[in-house]
Amino acid sequence: MGVLIRNGTVVTSLDLFRGDVLCEGGRIAAVGPQLDASGHDVVDASGQYVFPGGVDPHVHMALPFMGNVSLDDYETGGAAGVAGGTTTFIDFCIPGRDDNALDVLAAWHEKARIATVDYTYHMAVTSWGEQSREWMRKCVEEEGLTSIKVFMAYRGAIGIDDTELIHAMRAAAELGAVVTVHAEHGEMVVELQNSLFAQGKVAPKYHAQSRPSQVEGEATNRALMIAETTGATAYIVHMTCQESVTALARARERGQLAYGETCPQYLLLDDMVYEKANFEGSAYVMSPPIRPRKHQEALWGALQSGILQTVGTDHITFSHEQKLSGKDDFRIIPNGAGGIQDRMSLLWNHGVRTGRLNIHQFVDLTSTRAARIFDLYPRKGSITVGADADLVVWDPAGTRTISAKTHHHQNDRSIFEGFEVTGVPSTVLVQGRVAYANGDLKVERGSGRFLARKVTRREIP
Amino acid sequence: MGVLIRNGTVVTSLDLFRGDVLCEGGRIAAVGPQLDASGHDVVDASGQYVFPGGVDPHVHMALPFMGNVSLDDYETGGAAGVAGGTTTFIDFCIPGRDDNALDVLAAWHEKARIATVDYTYHMAVTSWGEQSREWMRKCVEEEGLTSIKVFMAYRGAIGIDDTELIHAMRAAAELGAVVTVHAEHGEMVVELQNSLFAQGKVAPKYHAQSRPSQVEGEATNRALMIAETTGATAYIVHMTCQESVTALARARERGQLAYGETCPQYLLLDDMVYEKANFEGSAYVMSPPIRPRKHQEALWGALQSGILQTVGTDHITFSHEQKLSGKDDFRIIPNGAGGIQDRMSLLWNHGVRTGRLNIHQFVDLTSTRAARIFDLYPRKGSITVGADADLVVWDPAGTRTISAKTHHHQNDRSIFEGFEVTGVPSTVLVQGRVAYANGDLKVERGSGRFLARKVTRREIP
Amino acid sequence: MGVLIRNGTVVTSLDLFRGDVLCEGGRIAAVGPQLDASGHDVVDASGQYVFPGGVDPHVHMALPFMGNVSLDDYETGGAAGVAGGTTTFIDFCIPGRDDNALDVLAAWHEKARIATVDYTYHMAVTSWGEQSREWMRKCVEEEGLTSIKVFMAYRGAIGIDDTELIHAMRAAAELGAVVTVHAEHGEMVVELQNSLFAQGKVAPKYHAQSRPSQVEGEATNRALMIAETTGATAYIVHMTCQESVTALARARERGQLAYGETCPQYLLLDDMVYEKANFEGSAYVMSPPIRPRKHQEALWGALQSGILQTVGTDHITFSHEQKLSGKDDFRIIPNGAGGIQDRMSLLWNHGVRTGRLNIHQFVDLTSTRAARIFDLYPRKGSITVGADADLVVWDPAGTRTISAKTHHHQNDRSIFEGFEVTGVPSTVLVQGRVAYANGDLKVERGSGRFLARKVTRREIP
Amino acid sequence: MGVLIRNGTVVTSLDLFRGDVLCEGGRIAAVGPQLDASGHDVVDASGQYVFPGGVDPHVHMALPFMGNVSLDDYETGGAAGVAGGTTTFIDFCIPGRDDNALDVLAAWHEKARIATVDYTYHMAVTSWGEQSREWMRKCVEEEGLTSIKVFMAYRGAIGIDDTELIHAMRAAAELGAVVTVHAEHGEMVVELQNSLFAQGKVAPKYHAQSRPSQVEGEATNRALMIAETTGATAYIVHMTCQESVTALARARERGQLAYGETCPQYLLLDDMVYEKANFEGSAYVMSPPIRPRKHQEALWGALQSGILQTVGTDHITFSHEQKLSGKDDFRIIPNGAGGIQDRMSLLWNHGVRTGRLNIHQFVDLTSTRAARIFDLYPRKGSITVGADADLVVWDPAGTRTISAKTHHHQNDRSIFEGFEVTGVPSTVLVQGRVAYANGDLKVERGSGRFLARKVTRREIP
Repeated sequence: MGVLIRNGTVVTSLDLFRGDVLCEGGRIAAVGPQLDASGHDVVDASGQYVFPGGVDPHVHMALPFMGNVSLDDYETGGAAGVAGGTTTFIDFCIPGRDDNALDVLAAWHEKARIATVDYTYHMAVTSWGEQSREWMRKCVEEEGLTSIKVFMAYRGAIGIDDTELIHAMRAAAELGAVVTVHAEHGEMVVELQNSLFAQGKVAPKYHAQSRPSQVEGEATNRALMIAETTGATAYIVHMTCQESVTALARARERGQLAYGETCPQYLLLDDMVYEKANFEGSAYVMSPPIRPRKHQEALWGALQSGILQTVGTDHITFSHEQKLSGKDDFRIIPNGAGGIQDRMSLLWNHGVRTGRLNIHQFVDLTSTRAARIFDLYPRKGSITVGADADLVVWDPAGTRTISAKTHHHQNDRSIFEGFEVTGVPSTVLVQGRVAYANGDLKVERGSGRFLARKVTRREIP
Repeated sequence: MGVLIRNGTVVTSLDLFRGDVLCEGGRIAAVGPQLDASGHDVVDASGQYVFPGGVDPHVHMALPFMGNVSLDDYETGGAAGVAGGTTTFIDFCIPGRDDNALDVLAAWHEKARIATVDYTYHMAVTSWGEQSREWMRKCVEEEGLTSIKVFMAYRGAIGIDDTELIHAMRAAAELGAVVTVHAEHGEMVVELQNSLFAQGKVAPKYHAQSRPSQVEGEATNRALMIAETTGATAYIVHMTCQESVTALARARERGQLAYGETCPQYLLLDDMVYEKANFEGSAYVMSPPIRPRKHQEALWGALQSGILQTVGTDHITFSHEQKLSGKDDFRIIPNGAGGIQDRMSLLWNHGVRTGRLNIHQFVDLTSTRAARIFDLYPRKGSITVGADADLVVWDPAGTRTISAKTHHHQNDRSIFEGFEVTGVPSTVLVQGRVAYANGDLKVERGSGRFLARKVTRREIP
Repeated sequence: MGVLIRNGTVVTSLDLFRGDVLCEGGRIAAVGPQLDASGHDVVDASGQYVFPGGVDPHVHMALPFMGNVSLDDYETGGAAGVAGGTTTFIDFCIPGRDDNALDVLAAWHEKARIATVDYTYHMAVTSWGEQSREWMRKCVEEEGLTSIKVFMAYRGAIGIDDTELIHAMRAAAELGAVVTVHAEHGEMVVELQNSLFAQGKVAPKYHAQSRPSQVEGEATNRALMIAETTGATAYIVHMTCQESVTALARARERGQLAYGETCPQYLLLDDMVYEKANFEGSAYVMSPPIRPRKHQEALWGALQSGILQTVGTDHITFSHEQKLSGKDDFRIIPNGAGGIQDRMSLLWNHGVRTGRLNIHQFVDLTSTRAARIFDLYPRKGSITVGADADLVVWDPAGTRTISAKTHHHQNDRSIFEGFEVTGVPSTVLVQGRVAYANGDLKVERGSGRFLARKVTRREIP
Repeated sequence: MGVLIRNGTVVTSLDLFRGDVLCEGGRIAAVGPQLDASGHDVVDASGQYVFPGGVDPHVHMALPFMGNVSLDDYETGGAAGVAGGTTTFIDFCIPGRDDNALDVLAAWHEKARIATVDYTYHMAVTSWGEQSREWMRKCVEEEGLTSIKVFMAYRGAIGIDDTELIHAMRAAAELGAVVTVHAEHGEMVVELQNSLFAQGKVAPKYHAQSRPSQVEGEATNRALMIAETTGATAYIVHMTCQESVTALARARERGQLAYGETCPQYLLLDDMVYEKANFEGSAYVMSPPIRPRKHQEALWGALQSGILQTVGTDHITFSHEQKLSGKDDFRIIPNGAGGIQDRMSLLWNHGVRTGRLNIHQFVDLTSTRAARIFDLYPRKGSITVGADADLVVWDPAGTRTISAKTHHHQNDRSIFEGFEVTGVPSTVLVQGRVAYANGDLKVERGSGRFLARKVTRREIP
């Protein structure tokens, strides 16, 4: 017995048609008009859309970071995603500089046992030593991790220098792995942080001042040059500003294969959030920081024109209590905020409803493109026979007021507190099971599977 | 009884899978693995690709132009297309400044009775008078023509001035029609032509000098500003140069919905062609002209990064004899050249085989995107159940040497003479019938249908 | 007996030194340290700067425009300039489309008889007929007018179309004349004006909406393309926005010889001025209009980096009463505002005192560069022996509050009302006579001379 | 008794007039028409120009580099400059990473005792340790060195990393020193060098391949970001390519105070030089390398529009014998070539005679601007009373064929071998003495003086 989603408007990044989707055995068994419902549970999707489940290419679950462990784990983070329409995420496996990457990978697998949705990891390269090349090869060719992560910021901790970056990019080029890049000029950030702190500027807002937009733009430009020269495919994560967008746009214009991601917070918030009293600005402390308003326009334009390919969240939740560890020093406020539940509704409300994005772009930006770039397609991000039955029935008229009081994030703050959105999932299927239906969340702890990936993009002649 | 294409690698702009495609009653009846072949003719596509038939968004058939009538008509031009994998084209219905647009449309329909493949027209707006708005409305809402054409060049003949352009763009915005634009600064071209001619510079190469790239770039920029201000969706035809690409790229970066097309001749030829002896340079006289080599790089980059959406041909064939009418005056050489048969192989050979484009981009650029922009999708450009059974079985190892001696164009010259390409159609289905198979061309005169279009892009929320 | 300016810091666009300047017979007779003062009146410039008198390259005096005549004439406008440090201006001689340019020039000379400072004109080309080329030649070669003006806006009145513009540019290129350009897309402005008016939008703020920045940017780009292609030297007047600056910057980067001017109102005001109650927004109605704030940053950057060469005023004064003629129709509000008295202090206060500009740039932007571009140098804009003794002793510590109550403009409104500036002229010499000293203005009606110019830039190899 | 230059056309970066220049006591004593010649030697400059002596802001004399010592020293290098019109140069004082900067400065002074023309140094910062800040302060405030040099290339030798660069830039900003920057991404160069070498690619042409233009463009962009963020004034030396020009142009457009220099070899040669047989390509091995031809156009445009301020030479001569030390490994070919004698004639011939540059730009680019940027003005770069009497009488009709056989460089190769130039110095005065006259070179060993500089730019309000 399966589940039949009946009479919805099925939408992919390419197509749109009225019809049914039958899910059996965790997969899509049939797609078409008026399928036979006998023997199946029926989800009525009349007047609603059916989308492939969202793929969030950028989350951190239960990550030990800056002296704290982030609160959402593979169980709760996945559940929150489901409540928002996201049914797959990509976490980052992050070894310390001196760690054995494969050992850390094993630990990550352990941590993921409680997963409620399917997942995979980008493998972070946080140093470059004798074994690094072999670890990368193993990850890509044997462990199913076809993307790596490098940090140009966080120098001294997980950040790498340009020589390391060159080696990692070159290896990735040879192996066919995508290189995801956190692009900020790490040394300049450290210098500005220390300089501000030395002047007694310790409040959250100085976090933003210590990482001005040109620092991100510069690093983006540099990463793209190194990628071009080594032949690597770069994917710039959490882009926030005009400078970065311009750097990526110019690289792409020259024919360079390079991608960019932004997040809802950069599209919708501005740096006035850091002015909030009572240390509430700390909720918005993340890297890169929230920018002055003018950058939003650049990001939206880049989404509309295809300069950016994906919208992720950089989901990582810390409580106000945890944030307070940086009460007297913005430099040690745990960086990050949650967003996995909110991503799709925010993009629908502010992107599709405003006319900036059409519905195919929405599917592409929230699901399909991430799946394609990261070798998950067509298992994920697709509504075709044989694909995983991760599906969202989307109610374009449904509404929600985002609040820490009601969200499924493990967090006592929401950076989107009070945002009213129209456009929410009414039903979400995970592996062919109804995991969310009109407010009722029923995910299965441990049911989420590691998605071993293969480099598939090169099959293309 | 239908035709079953068996065991090919089916490729759309989004997906790629091994399988079969069944065509019945002129449509695609089934797509999937191992379909039942019983009762059907079978085309073996093993080791080959199956693509949606090409859509050429820019051709002129039997057009009276510059004192001549172009040689390929709806029968022969369509046939040449089929031989190259193109099964749909969009012609331009071009009234004179004083003509009744609807009368001219009727004449165009008459001319198209002999069509061998399906077709539609862009309706040219060549002046703006009292009835123009109503004609446009009728064309869009009643006659099935959801795109218009404006010429910024050819002032005094079919070119319009900026006030007319503003009115046409505004009306198109209200009606939801796409505005295709020939972008060259018409007045400057006239001035340069006359100035060169007055100096005794009459040879074909002065054609190129009379239309330098900045003249195109300027007009592209202007058309995009007018489109932005009036709210129209612009589609710049036959873009040839860095300046135009930059103008379009910047507009898109700001979030403007605007499209661009280029043609194989601009990607692959350079202005040395005008140096050919014995008036042979006249074969390359077209507007805009072939550019210096450096512009090719800009165009390829723009294709790769999605700044340009389509590759058309501007197919219009004139014999050497016809070209000779401008023997002593480059200004009256009939403009244009053929390409409909060559388009897909050239783009495959120089785009896909070189690694510049992946196979999905190829399908998108040659078929799907034109169908989507011009309201033909998913009837055309798609391999889904119910779509028209216009399909190409593509042999990536097949070769062809392009030559006027062997091509199906009605033309004694080929601007790609001697080009060797790898990647050719082995079988082409038109309306579910095998119209081309390994060199054997069997199109049906009069079988091509006018494709009445509806504005569909606005359904998207 | 002459006037000796003693002990000042003499500053030119290139040099700075402590010394004296001796003026005799209307000219600079000596420059150096400790000149002999015997027999001369002495102006003590200790602690102050000595600059060449300001040259305002863009004013309109007693201009009949939009049904009114502007209030400041050659007497009062020149006097107001002197009070602000400006001792030379360039007016525009503007024939109607059907006028004989030379007759109109004669009328302009008549109007200028009462001039209080030296002046010249840019000759406007407002149509192109049989005699236009010869008129231009006469103006340039015989009448001493080496610059022309073209309006891309004001179509139907003094605006010209692109064919006319091409002819004018080509003739200017041949004659060595600079082409000053009012760059707005005239047809689009008309369309937007009428469209807004038809919606009942009649207030001053709709003036701004009818001329959005892209309309200026487009025309700037077009003018520069035509100049490049014809070989003309273009000078874009009153640039106001990012789009224009970018167009000029890109042209110059390619090596094109082209110039740009902005005005204090575009550097310092933003479009909130149009929200003023009681029709007070009408004071700011000018073309192009005051822009949103973000454009100011682009203009300052362009001044600093030398993309723009001059700061003019577009001085033209209309009373509130005159503005009221457009009370019910923003389209007929007389366009323009005064500024000739305020220009130098505003640029000093907001440019030099803020560190954006150094003192040499200040001299260059307010005086020397305009003189060089328009063939007035070194007679004007220079502190060298033999130059006209038009000099400003500048008190960097002096202050002024700009107000219609106190300014010397013939206008009951000031668009800079309430601006407090530090940096004012303490003494101004005109033709070697003290015409302004610490608030005391003593200009001589009729003493201003027409400056016949010769094309001098081409002497340079 | 002095020297009177009579009846020349005296040209500065601002002015041009017919007149005489009297030199006494090593300085300019008078400038004006028809000066009294009695008691003076007379140089007849009829039909010729009189320019301020050239200032070459970028040379290396007797530099130990890459295992060799460059051949031209303070005596011969200065002499060669004089023969070409250059009478002042700025060398680089380059300590090793572990050296005491002040000791090295003393050694540099020693080396300069034989100087034939006046000189100063940029002080290189090749590491950042405890004493670096104090050394910089001493150099700027006590030793008369108001500019520093940093190398982003040559990592491991004299190159510094970004943290060091930030510290140096910050200190420079505080001290008012200009930061001259060699901008190439050092780590990428090393990687490419080693990768090419490992493939057996050892010939000179691989030098160019190991330093592609994007590597320079990236570093330029990075240096400018760091300068902007720290408040430093950057001067990018020897810019060679479109990417660098664009980076600088964009920074300047935003209002950033930043400068750029190029050299004749980058304006006039292209990378085909590396194809020369018999290891002759080694003569052109320098960093950055000679670029593909398309970059020349970008450089010329940038010179014309003022994006670049100076033309230096990076003069450093190595014999073919010395170059042979890298016969089997391009990585160790001593980098550099000579040019100090050729600079002004090359720029005149290819810049002024072609119409790209006017004569004032020529003076500015070759002399005045370097003097102004580096605090030598008006002692150098100026023709005013009191300035040093370093002057060039320039014969615009004189010709020279550049050749290693005849040049005054200590080098058996010339990278401009066979170049014919029109425009040469006929007479050159150094400290008021005729040091060169129509081929006769009479410099005085040891007469050249160290030019102690003071930060003067900040005096400007």
